[in-house]
Amino acid sequence: VGAALLLLLALGAAESRHRAWPRRGAHQRYTPDWESLDARPLPGWYDEAKFGVFVHWGVYSVPAWGSEWFWWHWKGEGQRQYELFMKKNYPPGFSYADFGPQFTATFFEPDDWADLFRAAGARYVVLTAKHHEGFTNWPSPVSWNWNSQDLGPHRDLVGELGTALRKRNIRYGLYHSLLEWFHPLYLLDKKNGFKTQYFVSSKTMPELYDLVNRYKPDLIWSDGEWECPDTYWNSTDFLAWLYNDSPVKDQVVVNDRWGQNCSCHHGGFYNCQDKYMPKSLPAHKWEMCTSVDKSSWGYRRNMVMAGIASEEEIISELVQAVSLGGNYLLNVGPTKDGVIVPIFQERLLAVGKWLSISGEAIYASQPWRVQSDRNTTSVWYTSKVPDVYAILLQWPKNGVLYLASPKTTSATKVTMLGLEGDLKWSQDPGQGLFISLPQLPPSALPVKFAWTLKLTGVE
Amino acid sequence: VGAALLLLLALGAAESRHRAWPRRGAHQRYTPDWESLDARPLPGWYDEAKFGVFVHWGVYSVPAWGSEWFWWHWKGEGQRQYELFMKKNYPPGFSYADFGPQFTATFFEPDDWADLFRAAGARYVVLTAKHHEGFTNWPSPVSWNWNSQDLGPHRDLVGELGTALRKRNIRYGLYHSLLEWFHPLYLLDKKNGFKTQYFVSSKTMPELYDLVNRYKPDLIWSDGEWECPDTYWNSTDFLAWLYNDSPVKDQVVVNDRWGQNCSCHHGGFYNCQDKYMPKSLPAHKWEMCTSVDKSSWGYRRNMVMAGIASEEEIISELVQAVSLGGNYLLNVGPTKDGVIVPIFQERLLAVGKWLSISGEAIYASQPWRVQSDRNTTSVWYTSKVPDVYAILLQWPKNGVLYLASPKTTSATKVTMLGLEGDLKWSQDPGQGLFISLPQLPPSALPVKFAWTLKLTGVE
Amino acid sequence: VGAALLLLLALGAAESRHRAWPRRGAHQRYTPDWESLDARPLPGWYDEAKFGVFVHWGVYSVPAWGSEWFWWHWKGEGQRQYELFMKKNYPPGFSYADFGPQFTATFFEPDDWADLFRAAGARYVVLTAKHHEGFTNWPSPVSWNWNSQDLGPHRDLVGELGTALRKRNIRYGLYHSLLEWFHPLYLLDKKNGFKTQYFVSSKTMPELYDLVNRYKPDLIWSDGEWECPDTYWNSTDFLAWLYNDSPVKDQVVVNDRWGQNCSCHHGGFYNCQDKYMPKSLPAHKWEMCTSVDKSSWGYRRNMVMAGIASEEEIISELVQAVSLGGNYLLNVGPTKDGVIVPIFQERLLAVGKWLSISGEAIYASQPWRVQSDRNTTSVWYTSKVPDVYAILLQWPKNGVLYLASPKTTSATKVTMLGLEGDLKWSQDPGQGLFISLPQLPPSALPVKFAWTLKLTGVE
Amino acid sequence: VGAALLLLLALGAAESRHRAWPRRGAHQRYTPDWESLDARPLPGWYDEAKFGVFVHWGVYSVPAWGSEWFWWHWKGEGQRQYELFMKKNYPPGFSYADFGPQFTATFFEPDDWADLFRAAGARYVVLTAKHHEGFTNWPSPVSWNWNSQDLGPHRDLVGELGTALRKRNIRYGLYHSLLEWFHPLYLLDKKNGFKTQYFVSSKTMPELYDLVNRYKPDLIWSDGEWECPDTYWNSTDFLAWLYNDSPVKDQVVVNDRWGQNCSCHHGGFYNCQDKYMPKSLPAHKWEMCTSVDKSSWGYRRNMVMAGIASEEEIISELVQAVSLGGNYLLNVGPTKDGVIVPIFQERLLAVGKWLSISGEAIYASQPWRVQSDRNTTSVWYTSKVPDVYAILLQWPKNGVLYLASPKTTSATKVTMLGLEGDLKWSQDPGQGLFISLPQLPPSALPVKFAWTLKLTGVE
Repeated sequence: VGAALLLLLALGAAESRHRAWPRRGAHQRYTPDWESLDARPLPGWYDEAKFGVFVHWGVYSVPAWGSEWFWWHWKGEGQRQYELFMKKNYPPGFSYADFGPQFTATFFEPDDWADLFRAAGARYVVLTAKHHEGFTNWPSPVSWNWNSQDLGPHRDLVGELGTALRKRNIRYGLYHSLLEWFHPLYLLDKKNGFKTQYFVSSKTMPELYDLVNRYKPDLIWSDGEWECPDTYWNSTDFLAWLYNDSPVKDQVVVNDRWGQNCSCHHGGFYNCQDKYMPKSLPAHKWEMCTSVDKSSWGYRRNMVMAGIASEEEIISELVQAVSLGGNYLLNVGPTKDGVIVPIFQERLLAVGKWLSISGEAIYASQPWRVQSDRNTTSVWYTSKVPDVYAILLQWPKNGVLYLASPKTTSATKVTMLGLEGDLKWSQDPGQGLFISLPQLPPSALPVKFAWTLKLTGVE
Repeated sequence: VGAALLLLLALGAAESRHRAWPRRGAHQRYTPDWESLDARPLPGWYDEAKFGVFVHWGVYSVPAWGSEWFWWHWKGEGQRQYELFMKKNYPPGFSYADFGPQFTATFFEPDDWADLFRAAGARYVVLTAKHHEGFTNWPSPVSWNWNSQDLGPHRDLVGELGTALRKRNIRYGLYHSLLEWFHPLYLLDKKNGFKTQYFVSSKTMPELYDLVNRYKPDLIWSDGEWECPDTYWNSTDFLAWLYNDSPVKDQVVVNDRWGQNCSCHHGGFYNCQDKYMPKSLPAHKWEMCTSVDKSSWGYRRNMVMAGIASEEEIISELVQAVSLGGNYLLNVGPTKDGVIVPIFQERLLAVGKWLSISGEAIYASQPWRVQSDRNTTSVWYTSKVPDVYAILLQWPKNGVLYLASPKTTSATKVTMLGLEGDLKWSQDPGQGLFISLPQLPPSALPVKFAWTLKLTGVE
Repeated sequence: VGAALLLLLALGAAESRHRAWPRRGAHQRYTPDWESLDARPLPGWYDEAKFGVFVHWGVYSVPAWGSEWFWWHWKGEGQRQYELFMKKNYPPGFSYADFGPQFTATFFEPDDWADLFRAAGARYVVLTAKHHEGFTNWPSPVSWNWNSQDLGPHRDLVGELGTALRKRNIRYGLYHSLLEWFHPLYLLDKKNGFKTQYFVSSKTMPELYDLVNRYKPDLIWSDGEWECPDTYWNSTDFLAWLYNDSPVKDQVVVNDRWGQNCSCHHGGFYNCQDKYMPKSLPAHKWEMCTSVDKSSWGYRRNMVMAGIASEEEIISELVQAVSLGGNYLLNVGPTKDGVIVPIFQERLLAVGKWLSISGEAIYASQPWRVQSDRNTTSVWYTSKVPDVYAILLQWPKNGVLYLASPKTTSATKVTMLGLEGDLKWSQDPGQGLFISLPQLPPSALPVKFAWTLKLTGVE
Repeated sequence: VGAALLLLLALGAAESRHRAWPRRGAHQRYTPDWESLDARPLPGWYDEAKFGVFVHWGVYSVPAWGSEWFWWHWKGEGQRQYELFMKKNYPPGFSYADFGPQFTATFFEPDDWADLFRAAGARYVVLTAKHHEGFTNWPSPVSWNWNSQDLGPHRDLVGELGTALRKRNIRYGLYHSLLEWFHPLYLLDKKNGFKTQYFVSSKTMPELYDLVNRYKPDLIWSDGEWECPDTYWNSTDFLAWLYNDSPVKDQVVVNDRWGQNCSCHHGGFYNCQDKYMPKSLPAHKWEMCTSVDKSSWGYRRNMVMAGIASEEEIISELVQAVSLGGNYLLNVGPTKDGVIVPIFQERLLAVGKWLSISGEAIYASQPWRVQSDRNTTSVWYTSKVPDVYAILLQWPKNGVLYLASPKTTSATKVTMLGLEGDLKWSQDPGQGLFISLPQLPPSALPVKFAWTLKLTGVE
């Protein structure tokens, strides 16, 4: 065996493999191929969770300008505005690595973050353990002096946030980029047409194993796969170990970015592209990830309101994603100081407030036989057998809502979540029903938008 | 004459004095005493403006922690948490002056600020030209190497913002602190029981004259007066010059902080205390100043939503202040980078959006004979003869609003600003009227809160 | 009286004036004119001291490039290489004031400096209390936030060094620049053709009085006078106070840079130009100041040996200066860390080692009737009546030295300082004498160069 | 083969191996064991060179305090004075990696360095390519973001100096530390009792091969070997490749630090301990390395003269080392700015000046049959058959030197290097000779110390 495998074992894989052995017969083991791996049922917690928070935090939070792709736009593409930004604000020759010590995390309080995420109604949180810049937010032994313990924050950011989340029973996911734009060994492999795997064996795989063994994540959100096939990345080997022998083999969930042509085809749930929202109900569990700051996942110091998603947009997307069988992963980028700025707090708290009334129609719900109403695109359905939830994104002007898709029965009843009492409704001669919405002053409405009607006794 | 007066002349006062001479007879001149100065009529623009934006920006925006009183809490009072903050984040011995070069104003775009303030509906903007720290946001010749031109931003912040505001016809006010906590000459005067005026003659007065001559502000927002009588500050001399001979003598407005016991008694409009809101209509023009971040006027990096005023709170205060004859000056603290962060943008834009519908009841309005309705504290009146505006802070649950104060006539009509058509109303047997509010879905309401009814033909 | 005079009094002058009063009759007082001031006898310690160390230390020690005139060459003259230096090493817009916090004085140990200066044989030390940049190395109350206490070192450099020197009985001089290149009030006065004195009354004079009252210096080394007459600087007023009423009136010594055309004509001892060395014995006490780093008085990080004065050059100059009735003030520029680098230590210690043998011919000596020998320019004389010292800068090749100037007597004896025993000599038939120098291996010579012969019984 | 070997090949080793093949028969190849490797003759240039300059430069040049072992004393040993130094001068938590961006090399001019080293008479220069801190002074592909190209200087220091030296025909050596105190993989191997080699295969060996292939050094100065046997380090494999197949196989020289118990026993020339000087002529070629700053190899900002080796000490050691068959490698530590400070320049130039006269007795000389004279320890011999050189460290008091060791002949002649003409001598009745040294003034001596007598016709 090569040195790299030995290293993996040394970093903890071997130990957990051994412990796992007696618990599973050989015939039940996953083999390192997609046919076997794709057959694994997705652990149930993930589909039930529906709403998660995504956190992009790294050295890009220091320049905090453009986006978390700062380094690439500057040095990979040589975009003029990035060169000008550096020229205007830094001495000549200042490099990306020179930003490192300024990533201070001064105000980072993981318990405050976790309280915020709980108040937002998030059932899982995904932190960038390592983005394409290669800086690790934990003391990776193969990323010496380019990690959050050795310089900058001088803290194990991945570990500290995990502890705070677990105290609150929030599931913990780790984002991990397979590629690192400028890692010399990655560039060497690339130059070799990805026929060598120096980078994979000495950096990617040791770090993935280390992350799993050390932090026992519930979710691995893989990214940065696009330039090479999964065979280069050794993805199936890793996933077979993850599913068979890792300390999280029973609950762990992964996404679909494990190599060229994997996305939307293999892995656990599907992300497909960033901000992907399907037109109709997909056959496979999926997740929409998006960001409150529409132009960036990492913090930008010069954000303006025009680029910030409104509360209404966010909740509309959440509703639609869940109705279409997806999860919704909403991103915020903390500052280099470790602060989630108020506009992001506000958006997250707005989701939490909405979910405190409407969560019944979201968490652990399932898609109904129809996703959006035949009559209008502003009503989306979810269900918890035998109940059906119709979520209105717009309040009809005359106060009467026509739903074409539900078939009423003698037992049909309609209520609005957050309000006492039944709503009056009447049968449509064809199919469907007319519902008289309550006439209430704005302040008496249970939520400010996306009102949920609970339909019982419908088909 | 002493050197200080010579200096004042040199810095420009003499020149403008001369130019002003022919325009005003000696008998019309103000004398440097409160009786004369207080008799000056307030230039009309100020009362008509109603709503302004306050901007606190200085070296305190660098630590951006605690509040803009950082230096005083740390070194003046020795508060333990400030000492700990410094100890945790800076090398031993790091001083407040050492923060100076980090005040970069990297992203400061005065035109963007001015666009934002215009979109907020602000008719005037007040910038801290100099706060108690003594750092001047303009190249003051008597604050060498402790100003925004010589170090840090290397820009004339006062000048640049002024130019941008004037292009948009927004009035420009300058905040100026009379005292400077740690200026050695101020401390010397203090030690002398304020019987000497070294500080006043070499710093305060030269700077005040310089500000007026250089930037021709429409408003001087004086502060930092509380430790000494106005005779120490030479306030009445300055105001007499300002009113008689300065280049802004016709339009300039000042507040009331010009010496111990002046506040709420002498000067131009009254601020009384910070965040002052009277219980009933005062006899004298006044202004409420307050801050979106409730705990600080300067930027704090670790703000949390719980401390941020909501849109509803802000607009309620604005309504109440104007109804009571006041102006409303709402503060935001930019970052050391020169950014007004999104949460502040959002609040300001919300005010602007509300004013775009409701401004008719605010700008250039006058207090009515009643301020809040006899029947309810959630309705506030303003007027533009002969019309009366009733602004509802709460929508009545049953959709019918009872106003006890207006006396109806045969010509009485009621409309809601932002909606077409008259509202139905009926006479109360005693006095007042019942108004049937429109039954509209939330999205069809012209504003989200603080709805304005326009009453014509009432007494 | 104007505010400025009041300020002077407040800062301590008044008090000392009062105390001084009874000690001196009115008829003995100096009047503020050169005739009176120039008549004051120079306190004796200065002429006896002969050798002093000059120390240039300030914010220029931060860039530490070019020279202590960095700011002027860069911003006053716009020299291209200075602009390039800044462009290459700092962000755009970085200003001189921004250097302030980097002047750390990390390793400044005044006792170590004082030990070094004592080991160098220095009888006085002159520190730049303030150079043309205006930064004060003490907490000047009129140089707020541009002094060594408020930022950078956060220490009273002038005070600390003074204390250390006094413990070792070394006289303490303070260098003070009258002008400050970029002080706005100086620039204002300049623009006014120096007909106004805002700068003098609010900065220069308060600081000079403060320095004297606070640190009681033995010497004031004035500089920066060249652009204006002494009447602008109020020099004669200051000197009259210094000589009549200051706490140092009995021992203080000053130089000659007090206004245009003063240098070499008025004041205390004469410096004339920097590095001035007269050709023959001047009528007035003078001092040669020079620097170990020949191209700069302030520290330069990129010094090369070719620009460093050798031990031999330094001692030759010292000998010549003393022989010609002068003092010798040798400069070193400490680093921003407060270190006097080894090459400077080495030079100073070499002088000290030489003086430990040869000091008898230097300290408290007087010029002889002849300065350099009639026969050779490499022999220089000093005297202490009735002895004469002949200092050889070159050892004659044949080991026999011919001195043409001394007249021998029957009592004539010759010795070499540092060696036991008399040297053989013989009379020249004309005048003078031949001296047989000892034949010794190099290691047995008392000094490595500039050997001193003591002649007794000569005329 | 494992990934590590593949990596080595990828980084260039394979290519050079192939090219080398035809030039050497299999029977001539070195095998990876000490018996074979030790049998390799040392390339001749090294013994002829005699004098080299050692340069310690790295991130330790940023704190520049204590020594180049700063990190270890601080974090490895927790020495109190290091903790205090950090506490006093940096914010809490500041790490060693945080120093990186401050290593600027602002003034680094490799041609100036090379000129200096040539003027010093150095025939080879050894630069720390990587010290125990692990920071590489070249863009090592396995030291990403912890090398001089990615951060700090943003330059290839190893490459630039090499180019400058080659232009001047100075041999180039690279210091390389096998261990890295805090590298996580080294710590892992250490924890495993050095039974694993993760560190060696992924860091040490790739870097050593890379250094050789990229820079083609004439000398590899290995260090940091002491905690592990050579089998852990794979030293013999590396050396076999170096001697058989590397691009420098014909001229490269190495030292003896390749594993526990190697030093003074195996390898190329022997360094034994730092500053090692044998008592008598060793059987094996050796080198004494020492430092101008006696307490540190890296630059220390607070050096004092008492700790600096004098010119005389340095030249005495050089003489003694060469007489005893050794080379002399004299160290200077540049500043973080890339400056070799004047005191170091001065020492190096002093050696160069001495060698310009005395080099005949040094360069390419050989030990004589006697090293120091039987009669005195202050005379040391070298030889170039048939001539013998006697170097006097002390000049005899009476001017007559007795040498007991040489046997005179009828052809015996004595001259002093740098002087014209023969010296008088006389035979001692026993053995040896008396030499009359010239009687010259100090300035006429060819050198200031360590005078060289050339003896011809002696045995």
